Amino acid sequence: MATATATIRFLQTPTAQAWVDQALANLNVILLDHAQCERKAAGVAMSLINRYPSDGELVTVLTAIAQEELAHFAQVNQWLERRGVPFGPLPPPPYGAGLRQQVRPVEPHRQLDVLLVSALIEARSHERLGLLAEQCPDGELAQFYSSLMASEARHYGTYWVLATGRFPRAAVAARLDTLAAAESKILSSLHPQPRIHS
Amino acid sequence: MATATATIRFLQTPTAQAWVDQALANLNVILLDHAQCERKAAGVAMSLINRYPSDGELVTVLTAIAQEELAHFAQVNQWLERRGVPFGPLPPPPYGAGLRQQVRPVEPHRQLDVLLVSALIEARSHERLGLLAEQCPDGELAQFYSSLMASEARHYGTYWVLATGRFPRAAVAARLDTLAAAESKILSSLHPQPRIHS
Repeated sequence: MATATATIRFLQTPTAQAWVDQALANLNVILLDHAQCERKAAGVAMSLINRYPSDGELVTVLTAIAQEELAHFAQVNQWLERRGVPFGPLPPPPYGAGLRQQVRPVEPHRQLDVLLVSALIEARSHERLGLLAEQCPDGELAQFYSSLMASEARHYGTYWVLATGRFPRAAVAARLDTLAAAESKILSSLHPQPRIHS
Repeated sequence: MATATATIRFLQTPTAQAWVDQALANLNVILLDHAQCERKAAGVAMSLINRYPSDGELVTVLTAIAQEELAHFAQVNQWLERRGVPFGPLPPPPYGAGLRQQVRPVEPHRQLDVLLVSALIEARSHERLGLLAEQCPDGELAQFYSSLMASEARHYGTYWVLATGRFPRAAVAARLDTLAAAESKILSSLHPQPRIHS
């Protein structure tokens, strides 16, 4: 499988050109799905704040992330309006549910896993928005994707820092290896419907 | 019962001075509870966006509200840090659960009720932050409360506009009367623990 950018730290398998081709052929659907991704990412940050309300550092940095994700949600929605794409729900790909299945239900494992799964999702988003920024034929939309990439990169760094600040570094690295393998496996066959994480 | 400000539109019974006295005697607890209120308000806006994803106007205006609530959450958390109040959970007063009980479970009633309950909560927050702005002995904190009031007022207006844009005006007004009566009844006896909605 051809790959279009360098491998992003954390990700075991780079995205194939087949995903980029599918996405560019279905940009309106990708934008609609992207809006859902930003909304869900804000929701994940808020659910972590809700679950660990006494952890001041976690609350502070995840509030900032939730704010940024909501700002991106608003920006993607402006693109939908501009392109005349009706707002609406879209069945998600199996990616999110597949990753959630990896989260061990009992603390403290649960917290570690949610932080690392969030880091992986942000890393994958960073990689794929980067591919769209490089290859999207609409220059202004490409520029928009490019503008989002820096945030996604910061976000996966933030989740990593939260994980290593709360768990032994070797344990974090070992668990990340396992989860990153699962993440790449989920994406190893292209989902038939175009999605950010198809 | 003495009241300290004019009655806010929507509210049937103004807040009594006893609430202000309780709040001012327990400002750190009130700040902690206020942070939860801002977080929950963002969550309510996001859950409405999630439930009605095809309603572009609703999605747009509630995204803006969720962003503002999160910004306020961050600001209140800065006040907690500044005053050395540890972050943490706080058992909520019966207010939210009591209002949620009023929400009829079946659409379209459910949407109307959630919009109006949200309007009432914002209206009550507006009134009470205004009382704190007037009477808080810490001038800088009073100024902070004052700065939040304008947003809360805009928010309850927004929820009202969303309701009247989606339901016949007479039906909205009649239902608001009923819900506002329930809201005032829930607050008619002061909750023993100091809270924004005690």
